[in-house]
Amino acid sequence: MPRSILALCALLVVGLPAHAQPDPLPSWNEGPAKQAILHFVKATTSKTSPQLVPPEERIATFDQDGTLWVSHPLYAQAMFALDRVHALAPKHPEWKTTEPFKAVLAEDKAAIGKFTESDWELIVAATHAGMSTEGFLELVKDWLAKAKHPHFQKPHTELAYLPMLELMRYLRANGYKTYIVTGGGQEFVRAYSERVYGVPPQQVIGSSILTKYEMQNGQPVLMREPKVFFIDDHAGKAIGINLFIGRRPQAAFGNSDGDAEMLRWTQANAGDRLMMLIYHDDAEREYAYGPAGGLPDTKVGTFSQALMDEAKKNHWIVVSMKKDWKRIFSSHELAGR
Amino acid sequence: MPRSILALCALLVVGLPAHAQPDPLPSWNEGPAKQAILHFVKATTSKTSPQLVPPEERIATFDQDGTLWVSHPLYAQAMFALDRVHALAPKHPEWKTTEPFKAVLAEDKAAIGKFTESDWELIVAATHAGMSTEGFLELVKDWLAKAKHPHFQKPHTELAYLPMLELMRYLRANGYKTYIVTGGGQEFVRAYSERVYGVPPQQVIGSSILTKYEMQNGQPVLMREPKVFFIDDHAGKAIGINLFIGRRPQAAFGNSDGDAEMLRWTQANAGDRLMMLIYHDDAEREYAYGPAGGLPDTKVGTFSQALMDEAKKNHWIVVSMKKDWKRIFSSHELAGR
Repeated sequence: MPRSILALCALLVVGLPAHAQPDPLPSWNEGPAKQAILHFVKATTSKTSPQLVPPEERIATFDQDGTLWVSHPLYAQAMFALDRVHALAPKHPEWKTTEPFKAVLAEDKAAIGKFTESDWELIVAATHAGMSTEGFLELVKDWLAKAKHPHFQKPHTELAYLPMLELMRYLRANGYKTYIVTGGGQEFVRAYSERVYGVPPQQVIGSSILTKYEMQNGQPVLMREPKVFFIDDHAGKAIGINLFIGRRPQAAFGNSDGDAEMLRWTQANAGDRLMMLIYHDDAEREYAYGPAGGLPDTKVGTFSQALMDEAKKNHWIVVSMKKDWKRIFSSHELAGR
Repeated sequence: MPRSILALCALLVVGLPAHAQPDPLPSWNEGPAKQAILHFVKATTSKTSPQLVPPEERIATFDQDGTLWVSHPLYAQAMFALDRVHALAPKHPEWKTTEPFKAVLAEDKAAIGKFTESDWELIVAATHAGMSTEGFLELVKDWLAKAKHPHFQKPHTELAYLPMLELMRYLRANGYKTYIVTGGGQEFVRAYSERVYGVPPQQVIGSSILTKYEMQNGQPVLMREPKVFFIDDHAGKAIGINLFIGRRPQAAFGNSDGDAEMLRWTQANAGDRLMMLIYHDDAEREYAYGPAGGLPDTKVGTFSQALMDEAKKNHWIVVSMKKDWKRIFSSHELAGR
């Protein structure tokens, strides 16, 4: 077979995807955010671009809670932990009289809203440790199959943001590796990251607890210990990216103060870079909080005025959910609040 | 263009690599080790095989020192550390009278051979910390460009084992992701893993020290701190694989007692698995140590009789460098010892 026919074949095969997908971001309204994404991808992946980034250096990192899916009124993982407290309560009669468990069992929302970091640490230690890594994955999968978001009354895995799913697919179609870099539990997110976001477990970087290698019935297992190993938030996001990837991202996406270091770390890379913050200003279709007001900030997931100021100063793009997103959810359009 | 021509094109493109590479392992002698590799790859990747492993689950992990390149008489990283002690000595006059630095500066090989783990910790803290992650990478690259192995008189990066390079390429050509899982320093290995082994930084799992996020002249940097964060050896290899990959390997390759947990962790996976130990029994072309005798085991990198017994019991394949490898080094055949 002549070489020219082979070359023609290659051209045809390479050329196909471009025809199949005219607008890669149909859930984004026209505007500066969408334009910035399209420009960035073209500048860093077109073969003739002076800003071309080699494929092996195409790294994009995404915060999860509030950036890829709903995180109000509580992180999904916090709801999982509270449900686990209820499930484990029969084995812990002392919890009826011991805080923070007492408040959880009494479903005292005001008290739960005021839990300190050490309250949550006690709850995580009681609910996320003491089982094998495989056993924990099963617990999370079982919970996800049954649990519903208290307002939207849908499984959490259906509350991923459609525009962000499109963005991740678009970046991957252009040779980018998409990583989740979450303050949440690494193993928790790995239970659904591949199914919901198309992100395999080795591309999920998160907070983790210690695991201990043991032989049980002649088989090696990793048991989860009630002790923090790594916190992947704020400076931890830059540290985690270096630890797990060993390369700086070319693009990074967050929604809260805990993502600032990741965006700075990305901006300090060379070439064209894209830093974006998802701004929850849509009280109709989702929530409005941070400087957009409407809801009080929770302690975690804060979008402070200082972050808004830094975004402006550093030319980070603030994505308005209200103006920039045509649709918010993937499988359905949910009723207003 | 008719669909049938497109299909023909696809077949042609897919069919090409098979013709281009008749024997994927030319540096391996015929024998049980080579047969086991060929059988494993066919069984886990042929579309009609009942043992077919989905592409996203094709993970192969490799120890580095002694498995992928020469680790005697000292690990390359230990030689780097000793050279750094010499380079930094003018700034540390107290080292002339303080162990373990005094022995290093006096080039007292007998004393260095007896260094304890805490001696090495002092040396690592003095030579691997106090600079940024980028600064450290530069130091390692500079050293690699100049340093030579004391016996072979070649750069360390030319002392990778050709049969293992062929094996890694062969696995990758069949959809496997190849990871390095090393007791050595993660950042040290990342300085050359892509160039020498074709393994990108995010696929290097190793021991690491703490890093601290700081702003310097308005730019974020990660400074290396003189404190251990994670030891990726023995149980740490199973823990590190779960932490970084979140999936069990289908194949694992080691050469010492520190790799046993990684091989057990791999064997506890489902389906066809391949566990191999590289056995240094070639005093002519490289070294003979462990039960093969010839050289005393160093404290690190030991191949004990217990490991040999476990290999036999668990049907792990012991690769004889002398019998199974036609050639040992990549760019040249080195003179005998």
